[in-house]
Amino acid sequence: MGVLIVEHKLGFIHANAGIDRSNIDQSLNQVLLLPEDPDLSSDKLRSTISKHFGKNIALIITDTMGRPFRNGIVGFAIGSSNLESVVDERGKQDIYGNILKVTQIAVADELAAAASLLMGQADQKKPIVLIRGYKFNFSTSSNGKDLIRSEEEDLFR
Amino acid sequence: MGVLIVEHKLGFIHANAGIDRSNIDQSLNQVLLLPEDPDLSSDKLRSTISKHFGKNIALIITDTMGRPFRNGIVGFAIGSSNLESVVDERGKQDIYGNILKVTQIAVADELAAAASLLMGQADQKKPIVLIRGYKFNFSTSSNGKDLIRSEEEDLFR
Repeated sequence: MGVLIVEHKLGFIHANAGIDRSNIDQSLNQVLLLPEDPDLSSDKLRSTISKHFGKNIALIITDTMGRPFRNGIVGFAIGSSNLESVVDERGKQDIYGNILKVTQIAVADELAAAASLLMGQADQKKPIVLIRGYKFNFSTSSNGKDLIRSEEEDLFR
Repeated sequence: MGVLIVEHKLGFIHANAGIDRSNIDQSLNQVLLLPEDPDLSSDKLRSTISKHFGKNIALIITDTMGRPFRNGIVGFAIGSSNLESVVDERGKQDIYGNILKVTQIAVADELAAAASLLMGQADQKKPIVLIRGYKFNFSTSSNGKDLIRSEEEDLFR
């Protein structure tokens, strides 16, 4: 099997650069690409759904990715709108009153992973998952780009 | 800040090798290590809880990890018992009847990520999350080790 590990122009590191042939009609000789601007797409979807239902919501567009060091794919956020995608807990106290020094939580990725379990990867036909009851932080300034680590800051590379 | 990326003897790639000083009494000059055999610990916990409640359950021990390419930490499974931790969907059909060729889903990691959202990293004092309603596959032969990719198979390295 030929696989290329490629950095997508959006900053995602993907096997086969996020180009997918599953869940499309392969007789048409087409491939499925990522949204050109996933955060903009998230904004538009969030705005339309929000108006339709008269509710303030947040929205995440998910995909699945393979990972270095680990087997299997997991859901992650390729774009988001109106939620704090990375929650910075630095400065907070733990149970013993110690100050957390490094803890930043990829909340949008964890929500995407949870949603991905319900969406499935085969013929489940569940493109949308409604997350209820989780107390996330609304944010108009955060989006999916906050989850992408710059090459300079990436200790793993 | 000094950080080392280290491969733990259990096979996890961690910043600072899974050695943690948060949520312990730091005046005691101690550190928190990972379980010596997380799958064995998962087995024991599952067996004890299963007997106590008279229910067949699966159990995942979670930790959080930083990731190459992505900001923020996410929950993942360091050990598991009695569930298929990686679900192989190769050979299944998608919506268009195409056969899935590469899809293996890290279900235990996605469940761990979901649980991690509820556990929190600071002073929430929620060490256990009960997952209900998700149709996982029971398995006595699968565990957390199935999630660790061998170096030879790791295209990202």
